[in-house]
Amino acid sequence: MRRPTIKDVAERAKVSLKTVSRVINNEPSVMQATRTRVLHAIAELDYEPDPSARNLRSGTPFVIGLVYDNPNPYHIIGVQNGVLAACRETGFGLQIHPCDSTSPLLVEELIEWVQRSRLAGLVLTAPMSERVEVTGALAARGIPLVRIIAATEDPQDGQACVYVDDNDAAYEITEHLIQLGHQRIGFLWGGTLHRSSQERYDGYARALADYGITLDKHLVVQGDYTFDDGFRGARRLLALRDPPTAIFGSNDEIAAGVLAAAKSAGMNVPYDLSIAGFEDSPFSRQSWPPLTTAKQATEEIARHAARLLIGRLREDAYADASVAIHNKGFVPQLVVRGSTAPMRPREARPPTPA
Amino acid sequence: MRRPTIKDVAERAKVSLKTVSRVINNEPSVMQATRTRVLHAIAELDYEPDPSARNLRSGTPFVIGLVYDNPNPYHIIGVQNGVLAACRETGFGLQIHPCDSTSPLLVEELIEWVQRSRLAGLVLTAPMSERVEVTGALAARGIPLVRIIAATEDPQDGQACVYVDDNDAAYEITEHLIQLGHQRIGFLWGGTLHRSSQERYDGYARALADYGITLDKHLVVQGDYTFDDGFRGARRLLALRDPPTAIFGSNDEIAAGVLAAAKSAGMNVPYDLSIAGFEDSPFSRQSWPPLTTAKQATEEIARHAARLLIGRLREDAYADASVAIHNKGFVPQLVVRGSTAPMRPREARPPTPA
Repeated sequence: MRRPTIKDVAERAKVSLKTVSRVINNEPSVMQATRTRVLHAIAELDYEPDPSARNLRSGTPFVIGLVYDNPNPYHIIGVQNGVLAACRETGFGLQIHPCDSTSPLLVEELIEWVQRSRLAGLVLTAPMSERVEVTGALAARGIPLVRIIAATEDPQDGQACVYVDDNDAAYEITEHLIQLGHQRIGFLWGGTLHRSSQERYDGYARALADYGITLDKHLVVQGDYTFDDGFRGARRLLALRDPPTAIFGSNDEIAAGVLAAAKSAGMNVPYDLSIAGFEDSPFSRQSWPPLTTAKQATEEIARHAARLLIGRLREDAYADASVAIHNKGFVPQLVVRGSTAPMRPREARPPTPA
Repeated sequence: MRRPTIKDVAERAKVSLKTVSRVINNEPSVMQATRTRVLHAIAELDYEPDPSARNLRSGTPFVIGLVYDNPNPYHIIGVQNGVLAACRETGFGLQIHPCDSTSPLLVEELIEWVQRSRLAGLVLTAPMSERVEVTGALAARGIPLVRIIAATEDPQDGQACVYVDDNDAAYEITEHLIQLGHQRIGFLWGGTLHRSSQERYDGYARALADYGITLDKHLVVQGDYTFDDGFRGARRLLALRDPPTAIFGSNDEIAAGVLAAAKSAGMNVPYDLSIAGFEDSPFSRQSWPPLTTAKQATEEIARHAARLLIGRLREDAYADASVAIHNKGFVPQLVVRGSTAPMRPREARPPTPA
C-alpha cells in the first residue's frame, strides 16, 4: 500500500494542505470542528508526518547553528551579530557553539549537536570551515553548510561559501610600511590552523619580493591570534641585534600586544617602531596610538554567509530578493592610523632597549 | 465543560501518558494501531496539547535563551561561555538574543521569541533583569526565568536570581585610591539603565564619606559602559581648573578610554594620574600600564545562573548535585595593577595639559 501523504489527509478532511499542516503543528488558529475532522482523517489514513518535513513545513522553528573557535571576543561578537541580522530578517533562531577545532571528535560532536538541537544548517567559521575532512563529513551527512574562509577566489567546489581575500589586504599593509621607508619589517603569525594566517603571511612575503626586499626569517615569528602572543613575539623581535623598525601583527590583538611590548620597553610608537594590525576591530581604535590595520567587514561577511545558508534552506526566504544569494568575496581595506610613521634614520634613534 | 487533559486521552485510548506524549510529539517508537487509537481519542475529546507542555515532555529539544544588551564584547562572551558550560553539562541548547533594552516593545519581542523558538526558559542579564515591568510580564506569561542582577543581597522575591555586590567592590577600589593619598577622585558612570552603575557609584560615595572626603559633583560624569564615554569623560575632568589625581571608571572599557585620554594629553600614567576600572576583563590586562580593577567572575556568575534555570526546568538535572542550586551572591575582588600609584604632591607635577 502506498504511504499516505499530507495531500490525502487534506482531501479526506476537505481542508487545505495549510490547515492540515497547522493541525499537525498544534498551531492555535484552527477551528475546533475542522481540527477534529483533520485528526480523524489522520487516524483513519494512518498518516505519519515526516519529522523532517514537519521541521521544514512550519510549527517547529527554523534554527541554524554557528560554529567558531576564535580567541578574539570582538571578532566573535561581530560574526554573531552578522548572522543574527540575517536570522532576524527571516524569522530564524540562532544557536551558538564555540568548539575546540583541534578535537579529534569534532565531527561527531557537531553531528550530535545538529541532531539533538534539530538544526536546519550550520555556519562554519575558520579554521573548521577550511578543513575538508570536517566540511566533507558534515556534507556527507546531509547537513546544509555555509563556510566563511580565507581565499583569494571562490574555490568553486559546489559548496556555499564566503571568501575573504586576506592575501591582497596583507600585501597592501606591507606595501604601506615599505613606502614609509621600512625595510626590516617583522611579521607575527596568527594561528597556523587558520588559512587566513597563511594568506596574510603570503601577502606580506609577496610585497617584500615585489619591492626587492629579502625576507629575513629572523623577523618572522609563529604564534596565535592573541594579545599575549603579540607581546611575546615583539619582545623576541625587539631583542634582536638588528631589530625591525616596523612590525605587522596578523590581527589587531597581536598588534596591541606588540604595542604593549614596545611601551613596556620604553619605546615611543610610532617614532621608534611602526605597528600594523589586521581586522579593524574596535580594539584597534581604542589603543593609543590607534592602529593602522585592514578593515574587514566582519559583520557584513557573516550576514552574507547566513543569508546564503537561509536562502538554500528556504527557497522563498529571499524570493523577492534585492539580496542576491550567491558565493561572494570580500577584500579588507587598508586603514592608516597613528601607529605607523616614516622610518627614522638609525642614527636619529636612541639605542633600542632589549 | 472541563478542558480535556492528556490523562483523559490516555484513559480513553487505554494507553500510558508516555504513549500519548509520544504520539503528540510524532516520535517514531509507537505501533501503528496504538497511534491510531490515540489520534481518535484526541479527536473525540478535542484535546489540545499545550505547546509549552509539549516542549517539556519530550521530542523537542531543551533550549534556553540568553538575553543581553551590553556594549562590551569581552563581557558578553564571558556570559555566553558561562551559560554554555551549564548547557553542555545537561544537554541543553542555547539561543542568543541581543536586544535594545530601551525598546518599548521589548516584552512583546521576548514573548514572541520564546514562543516561536519554543524556549524552555530565559537567562536575563542587566538591565532587562532589573526592570520589574519586564521580569513581571514574562513571569506572568509563565516563562521560566533567572536574573543576573546587581544587588548587595538576595531580593527574596521568590524568583531565581544571581546577584553581584558591586557596591562593596566599588567601595574597595575607592578605598585603595584614598589610601594611596588621593582626595580628588573622579568617577565615570556606566549606563544609568544598569543598576550596577548606581551600585558602583554608591560604593564610591560611601567610601568617600567614610574617609571624610566631601563628594565634589564636578568630579562625577554621566556616560555609558564604553571606551568612548571614558575618553570623553576623562577629557572633561582633566580640563577642570582643579582636576582629579585619580579617576575611577565604572568598567574596564571606560578606564581604557580614560587611559587613552590621559596619554593623548601627554600624561604619564600612573604618576600623573591614577586610573581604576571594574570587571577584570582581558582588556584590563592588555592596556599599558595594566589596569587596577575589581575581578568579577563573569563566567562563573553566568554558569550559576544557567544552572539555577536548568535545575528548575528539569528537576533531575542536578539530582545527584554536587552543584547546589539556589540563589547566590558574588562579590568582585580588588586587583591592584600598574595604573594606580601614590599621589604625587601637586608641586612635583608638571602643569596638566587641558
